[in-house]
Amino acid sequence: MTRYRLTPLAQSLPASVPFVGPETQERARNAPFAARLGANENVFGPSPRAIAAMAETEHWKYGDAQSHDLREALARTLGTTMDHIIVGEGIDGLLGYLVRLFVGEGDAVVTSDGAYPTFNYHVAGYGGVLHKVPFVDDHEDPASLFAKAAEVDAKLVYLSNPDNPMGSWHKGADIARAMDALPEGTLLVLDEAYVETAPEGTALPLPFDDPRVIRMRTFSKVYGLAGARVGYALGHPELITAFDKVRNHFGMNRAAQAGALAAVKDREWLTHVQSEVALARDRIAAIARDCGLTSLPSAANFVAIDCGRDGAFAKAVLDGLVERGIFVRMPFAAPQNRCIRVSCGTEADLDAFAAALPAALSAAERG
Amino acid sequence: MTRYRLTPLAQSLPASVPFVGPETQERARNAPFAARLGANENVFGPSPRAIAAMAETEHWKYGDAQSHDLREALARTLGTTMDHIIVGEGIDGLLGYLVRLFVGEGDAVVTSDGAYPTFNYHVAGYGGVLHKVPFVDDHEDPASLFAKAAEVDAKLVYLSNPDNPMGSWHKGADIARAMDALPEGTLLVLDEAYVETAPEGTALPLPFDDPRVIRMRTFSKVYGLAGARVGYALGHPELITAFDKVRNHFGMNRAAQAGALAAVKDREWLTHVQSEVALARDRIAAIARDCGLTSLPSAANFVAIDCGRDGAFAKAVLDGLVERGIFVRMPFAAPQNRCIRVSCGTEADLDAFAAALPAALSAAERG
Repeated sequence: MTRYRLTPLAQSLPASVPFVGPETQERARNAPFAARLGANENVFGPSPRAIAAMAETEHWKYGDAQSHDLREALARTLGTTMDHIIVGEGIDGLLGYLVRLFVGEGDAVVTSDGAYPTFNYHVAGYGGVLHKVPFVDDHEDPASLFAKAAEVDAKLVYLSNPDNPMGSWHKGADIARAMDALPEGTLLVLDEAYVETAPEGTALPLPFDDPRVIRMRTFSKVYGLAGARVGYALGHPELITAFDKVRNHFGMNRAAQAGALAAVKDREWLTHVQSEVALARDRIAAIARDCGLTSLPSAANFVAIDCGRDGAFAKAVLDGLVERGIFVRMPFAAPQNRCIRVSCGTEADLDAFAAALPAALSAAERG
Repeated sequence: MTRYRLTPLAQSLPASVPFVGPETQERARNAPFAARLGANENVFGPSPRAIAAMAETEHWKYGDAQSHDLREALARTLGTTMDHIIVGEGIDGLLGYLVRLFVGEGDAVVTSDGAYPTFNYHVAGYGGVLHKVPFVDDHEDPASLFAKAAEVDAKLVYLSNPDNPMGSWHKGADIARAMDALPEGTLLVLDEAYVETAPEGTALPLPFDDPRVIRMRTFSKVYGLAGARVGYALGHPELITAFDKVRNHFGMNRAAQAGALAAVKDREWLTHVQSEVALARDRIAAIARDCGLTSLPSAANFVAIDCGRDGAFAKAVLDGLVERGIFVRMPFAAPQNRCIRVSCGTEADLDAFAAALPAALSAAERG
């Protein structure tokens, strides 16, 4: 990149991607996957009303720059007001804006080793310095995260609850209590992407205008709209307003706004998906058990299966599954990378997974 | 914003929006617009095949991070290869990524006074210093732009052709010739959002891998997919690869990718829209003439109407139109702000405009 006068920071960044997508893998292997269980998508799909709302959209019109109707509906559902809510292009997009607002070159940021790579991608992209603490018993650990934040004077600390990639979770009240140790100058970025499939009491039980925290939510998981790219953040109005400094004001897809609005209003479909997810989690655990493996308890729409050895072995199992047409992923960091991560699927998806797992395991054991 | 530790740059930015959207205006006036002619949307809509492709999309899947199929189709249509093309969240999104790659605090950027405000928003957002040159005879002027770029050692220089907001245009060959004066260290950002409604010979007749220029194109205008948020940039593969350093790799809406792919392949619908646009431009010119006003020649999907006096008068005409339910916009800078800018509309839209204009003019004349 010598021809172009990129900024020194841009010059230093790799042209990398946090994840290799399933379509990219399908092109590489020259065959489609039989089961798509690697991206924690929601195969049960969005509300039929959301599908109808998207189909009826006048695509020739730009979206509403304020996502007014969607924010209004969210505010009503959550018992807050619109000025506590910013809608953006998925949690990925919102994390990008948030990092851009807070993180300059050399600024400290804290996360867990093995937590969401796209957050790390944004921090690196703005020149921040990432400090990582290990998981504790396969959980992201608020106490170590906040202690590290104090030590390095972090501007942001990232915590997901429920956690990706392990599916573990904390009670919201426990996180609230742990926040007593959150340093004054550190903003907690609480990623609640999977909160709707978690037990009652997982969401943080603090007012949305608590200035110490910003919560991230999404329509990509339980609402089944990953392809639509709609997320939202909840926080103090002063913080929410700051997004208007940098966001793409006309960046929202109009059909996505309409689909998310219809999805929020369809509580019946939400309940339906929640029960499908619970059933699929149990089925994944049973499939693991049948192969002599243990699975981890999960509050998310995926299950981590402990392959019982090290990361290299789990990777061999994963490769065997991918070879057999099953798209799954695995944690990046040890010792969590002894696991593979399997998203909830339809019965047919999980039949295919159940059929492939024993062969993938045997192949991995043969080495 | 004292509570939060934003970066000094973010701290200094206003929480502003480059444009006030029509929905925001409708909420403020508490009434819908009768004709939506202010955002240069394409009221003739997208190809029915694009609508069908979007409706058939599995919204629960994330989009393809590489927009492979769309880039392949674009490459075939344009006679180039995929590595010359990056697809992004509209030209707005791509301009944001481009500015982020090139512009750090204090870096010089050149544009025309009154040209696309969203580009300026991104430059300010990354701390760049904007230098503006005036339009010449209601045209953005390559010679002055490139001379200013040399003078201030600009990293980027922005030029739209056809131009927004005036609808004027240059022959592509004339821009290519003017590029002899483009300084070595300056990248030309050539916004060709409206090129498909322009006369043959308007597109820049240089190879797509010319390292001096990056071209921006969109599905928001002639393809009628503004709500979908799909744009693409054409440039040297080395430059195109650099977008992978900073872009949201999974930021594209899946249905939008499918819709754009279907739209690219439907050349018949493209021709249909091109002829509707040409007819609507003539009609707008005729409506202006009937009111004793002149309109400017336009190669875009809108027409600038010269209201014959100063910016204050044109603003009064615009306000009168908005009051009467006609959403239009106007140029920001003098002397172009003697005009109002009217997007191509359906017959019914333009009937409504024709009915409202005389009254808006009289009211403005009464002062």
